[in-house]
Parts: sequence; structure tokens; C-alpha cells
Amino acid sequence: MKEASKRAHEPWKAFQARQRNQDIKRDAVLQTAAHMFLEQGYRRTSMSELAKRLQITKPALYYYFHNKEQILVECYRAGITLIETLLDKALVSRGTGLTKVKAYIEAYAKSVVLYDFGRCVAMLDENELSTETRKEVRALKRRIDASIRGYIEEGIADKSIAPCDAKLASFAMSGAINWIGTWYKPSGPLSGVEIAGRFTHLLTEGLHARTSTASRQNTITRTTPRKTSATKAGKASR
Amino acid sequence: MKEASKRAHEPWKAFQARQRNQDIKRDAVLQTAAHMFLEQGYRRTSMSELAKRLQITKPALYYYFHNKEQILVECYRAGITLIETLLDKALVSRGTGLTKVKAYIEAYAKSVVLYDFGRCVAMLDENELSTETRKEVRALKRRIDASIRGYIEEGIADKSIAPCDAKLASFAMSGAINWIGTWYKPSGPLSGVEIAGRFTHLLTEGLHARTSTASRQNTITRTTPRKTSATKAGKASR
Repeated sequence: MKEASKRAHEPWKAFQARQRNQDIKRDAVLQTAAHMFLEQGYRRTSMSELAKRLQITKPALYYYFHNKEQILVECYRAGITLIETLLDKALVSRGTGLTKVKAYIEAYAKSVVLYDFGRCVAMLDENELSTETRKEVRALKRRIDASIRGYIEEGIADKSIAPCDAKLASFAMSGAINWIGTWYKPSGPLSGVEIAGRFTHLLTEGLHARTSTASRQNTITRTTPRKTSATKAGKASR
Repeated sequence: MKEASKRAHEPWKAFQARQRNQDIKRDAVLQTAAHMFLEQGYRRTSMSELAKRLQITKPALYYYFHNKEQILVECYRAGITLIETLLDKALVSRGTGLTKVKAYIEAYAKSVVLYDFGRCVAMLDENELSTETRKEVRALKRRIDASIRGYIEEGIADKSIAPCDAKLASFAMSGAINWIGTWYKPSGPLSGVEIAGRFTHLLTEGLHARTSTASRQNTITRTTPRKTSATKAGKASR
């Protein structure tokens, strides 16, 4: 009876195994496509080239995706899911609005420097999408923007963040982070994690050197630079 | 004799007037092209459409520019000249490195929000250029990057800027400013000048609210938020 039941399950298991196998292959297509879009541009990447890079036939590629735009949309979706997952993880610990904004900036910067899908969200041109899918991608991006704006507002309310225009501030943070995609090279002297950390510090603390007296008097005559992690970071060779 | 001399100069004058007229027309082509590239994308803008928008024939358009790429390069050149002119003007007054960085951020942000050519430098995809012209555009952009990095280093040396990684900081500043092009609408509630001012404040002062005690103790328990221009700005309706 036990043996019979096992046999009865086998076709289903085989189906599941095939399904897993297909998911793995589909993911491989997406990963490679994301890499090629970032490397040489979406327009310049053809389905033929993608198939060649993956060492599969063109019909095999079309089995997974109808066209190039569908692949682009899926890259965006994967990127946005990744960013939201990283943000959720970063925000497990509670704290002030500023703590949350810091965790947010760090998680977002990591998603751009460490993952191709994250970099796709930051870098690829939405204008390549059809009107309908562009709407979807923009809605997803707005959700991310709304989160950071919410944390900034929370920080203003709990006084950990100086009163400011939360909308503009969120655009400034996102812009600085998205721009990482234009200059970041994985072979560069700083690791992605280091870049994320320094960006977080820069954007939340600003450039202005302050001593407690200088800060109160709003004067530019200073004697002691603020001792922060950036002090050490600035000295590290790059 | 006087009359003869006047007549002798007339063809030259006519030539100069014709030349001026041509320069004006060439500028009009560039202005309109920049606007269309930003509005609908470089790829989506055809020479035929551009001629139509300008109400001239296609041969007339080709009299001024050999091809679309030449127009794109000229838009970049005009934008970079504009940015450098604004930066030079902003830096007439001397001061600390921080003062210069502030002047720089404000001038750069203005060039992006107030001028289509400035926005072209921030927004258009260099990958559309041929290898040779791309090199030229990148060299021009590097010159701008080098300036801001220089001022940040100056600020670190004169202690007006907290020790930091000047290269990363310049990328963060440029990124935040270039990104303005993706969300800025001239019809929005804030003027370009207001946006430039708030960005300058945000990027140099950071988000962190500080009281002198909190700053020294590196604690998040604060009582009085810093009174800055952003306090007023934050209250303004948007």
C-alpha cells in the first residue's frame, strides 16, 4: 500500500521537478538579460544575442518569454521585489524616523550596488515599456518613494530629522542612490557594502562640519572637525 | 569717399547679417531638439518630426546639421557650456570650501531645472553617441565632477566640510541633482530657484536634526530642532 502510494505520487513529483527546473532556467534568462541590459543597453541587446549568451536556441528563449519587453518588465519586477525585501528586513528594528531613513538608504544603496536587478530599477529607461507596463512599474516605484517619504515625515515628527520638504528630500536621496548605477564598477576599490555605508552617512549627516559651538553660532570658524565614521572612511585608501 | 567706403562695406555687412540670422536659426533648431529629446526621448524624435515642429523643410534642417547625433552632441556642448558659465558666475565670491560647494550645488541645480540644455546633460543617454563624441562628452562631464570634488577637498582642508570621501560625495551630489530631471515639472508647485535652494540646503546640511548637546553625545534624544531656512521651507505649502 505504501509502495503503491509512492508510485502514485511519482508523476506529480516528476512534474514538480520539471517545474522547478523551468523556474531555474527562467531565472537564468532574467539574470543574464539584466546583466546584458546594464552592460550594453536595452536597445542594443537582441533576443538572438541573449540566446547566444545563454547557449540556448531562440525558440527555447521564446518558450520562457514572449518578447524582450516582457523580460524587461520582469527585470523591473524582480528588482522592485528585491528592494522591498531588503527594505523590510532593514526595518525590522524599530527606532526614530532618522534610524529608519538610514536603514532605508543603506538597504536601497545595497540593492543598487550588489544586485543587477536592483540596478535595473535605478538605471533602465522606463520609456522602453509600453504604456500599460510603464504604469505598473511607476506605481511600484512610487510605493518605494512613498516609504522613504513616510520615514522622513516620521523623523520630522519625532524631531530626529530637521524640518524639511519630505518630498524633495526623498527625491534627493533616491536620485543620489539611483545615480550609483552610472558610475559603480564591481571591480572598483570600494565594496558595495562600503559604498552603501558611506552614502548613508553623507546623505543623513550632510557635508557641513560642525562643532557644537559652530553649530549654535552658525559660524564657519571651526577648530575641531566632527569625529565620525567618515573620518576613518575618508582616510581609507580608495 | 565716405559714401564709397560705406558701399564697399555693404556686402560684408549683409554677410554678417546673414551669418547672424543663420546662427539664430541654428540655435532655434538646437533649442527645439533639446526640448523634444527631453519630452519624448532621443530615439523617438525623428529628423522629420523635428523639421515639422520647426516648420521648416527637411533639407533646410540638414543644412544646419548633418544628422541627429550631431544635434545631440551640440545639445550636450551647449548644456556643459551653460553649466560651466553658471558655476563660474557662482564662484566669483570667495569663501570656504563649503561656501563654494553650496554655490556649486545651487548653480548646477538651477542649470537642470531652468534650462533644457542643462537638463540634457543630466538626462540624455550617452550611449546614443558614437565612441568618439561620447569620449568628448565624458571628458566635459569629468571636468564638472573634478570641480566639485576640488571644492569638497578644499572644504575638508579648511575644516568647513566634515572629513569624507570627496569622490563619493561628489557623485552623491551630482546624482541627486541630475535626478531632478526625472521628476521635475516646470508646472509644479515649486519654482526652479526654490528647488535649487532646498537641494543645496539638504545636501550640505543633511537630514539629521541636531542640538549642540545631541551632536556632542551622538544621541537621538533631542528637544529642539535646528532652526534653519528649511524650517520655514518645510512649512511652505507645496
